[in-house]
Amino acid sequence: MINSIGRTRWAIAEGYIPKSSHGPEPEMTSHETVCLLNASEQDAHVQLTVYFSDRAPAGPYQITVPANRTKHIRFNDLKDPEIIPRGTDYASVIESDVPIVVQHTRLDSRQAANALLTTIAYADAE
Amino acid sequence: MINSIGRTRWAIAEGYIPKSSHGPEPEMTSHETVCLLNASEQDAHVQLTVYFSDRAPAGPYQITVPANRTKHIRFNDLKDPEIIPRGTDYASVIESDVPIVVQHTRLDSRQAANALLTTIAYADAE
Amino acid sequence: MINSIGRTRWAIAEGYIPKSSHGPEPEMTSHETVCLLNASEQDAHVQLTVYFSDRAPAGPYQITVPANRTKHIRFNDLKDPEIIPRGTDYASVIESDVPIVVQHTRLDSRQAANALLTTIAYADAE
Amino acid sequence: MINSIGRTRWAIAEGYIPKSSHGPEPEMTSHETVCLLNASEQDAHVQLTVYFSDRAPAGPYQITVPANRTKHIRFNDLKDPEIIPRGTDYASVIESDVPIVVQHTRLDSRQAANALLTTIAYADAE
Repeated sequence: MINSIGRTRWAIAEGYIPKSSHGPEPEMTSHETVCLLNASEQDAHVQLTVYFSDRAPAGPYQITVPANRTKHIRFNDLKDPEIIPRGTDYASVIESDVPIVVQHTRLDSRQAANALLTTIAYADAE
Repeated sequence: MINSIGRTRWAIAEGYIPKSSHGPEPEMTSHETVCLLNASEQDAHVQLTVYFSDRAPAGPYQITVPANRTKHIRFNDLKDPEIIPRGTDYASVIESDVPIVVQHTRLDSRQAANALLTTIAYADAE
Repeated sequence: MINSIGRTRWAIAEGYIPKSSHGPEPEMTSHETVCLLNASEQDAHVQLTVYFSDRAPAGPYQITVPANRTKHIRFNDLKDPEIIPRGTDYASVIESDVPIVVQHTRLDSRQAANALLTTIAYADAE
Repeated sequence: MINSIGRTRWAIAEGYIPKSSHGPEPEMTSHETVCLLNASEQDAHVQLTVYFSDRAPAGPYQITVPANRTKHIRFNDLKDPEIIPRGTDYASVIESDVPIVVQHTRLDSRQAANALLTTIAYADAE
């Protein structure tokens, strides 16, 4: 119903999965999420690369977002090629073969009162 | 007093209405809001489409934002053509016939201490 | 030390000053802030217009940000030409005669545990 | 694995390091962070300038972000040429010799229940 919207190259400079959580899992587990929206008529093949302060990047992680669908991926759940370590600063770059929209969210439940943050990711000019 | 400001196509990749709330309704009900600003001299006719991870999109929802007015719409209150399910990942695309500005906010009151997030939505190039 | 950075027309679609607060004033008073950065060598003369859902806009409010300075203005403190009502949805447009950068922040202390949100405002193309 | 992504001039209009904290240091110390991602194959030499409401800017602070690395810098830890005062409004401009991506985060732990905010910084057109 809509032509594609978005860009093909995105970045998130902030990244940090808290080590601890309060509340029922998995809903209240401390997590970082990358939200991907593919409003086009074609499946999006997405590659996610994770950068660290003191080692070479991890990835790329492969994610498919079907046409006209959204996927909210927890960094906590990424496993292939490797798990993202907890309590560690990271950043990420997201590349897609069709235009998508990317947003970053964290739920921090280290304390009984949880905290939230979000931002639309940085969309690179093309 | 101001000429129009903004764009006609916007997207929000994050969306999630928590299932539960604490505190007096409706002020403290967990909610997701899309804030629409129409600073032009013409009414804006807005179409909102909601995307999911596992089914076809819902909508379009029709919203009119009068000239020189703002409307803060809770996704919780959308009913026609259908209600947005709680506890479900979604994303949205917002299209208008005149330039508008779009911002996304959530109040999460699943816990007694509420949490807030916001971001300006993604504005598509034209 | 830096040439100017930013744009001259900005918008914030979200706006809401909670009616109540917890904690010591003024630090912990529920408030909405517009942060203005003028990194140029000239004073910036800023006009802020506030939009509502059900009445004509208020303003313009006149703010001067000196060269190489930042000003963080609480909407709570705006008085001339009129006070911003509490517990009311609003939005704002910010116009400057020199390029500036605009960011929006809220501290919500309606509950003992405060909540924060922020986003860079929408920068209009020129 | 990726060519560079980002811009060379960024700004953050909000800045404020709360004076007090709750919880174990340094993890739960109230802090403001600037997250820098350098996804290029060259080291990035970054200059950070801090603006205030009532005095001349501080800096530039010199930061190197190696090729294919991210650095999350707490404003709390900046010391050369001077410390950033607590409980004071500020803003910042970030300039790099290669394209980078910049994001701003605050953890506010003045109360036992912490609060978080984040936004991608303003990227200047080039």
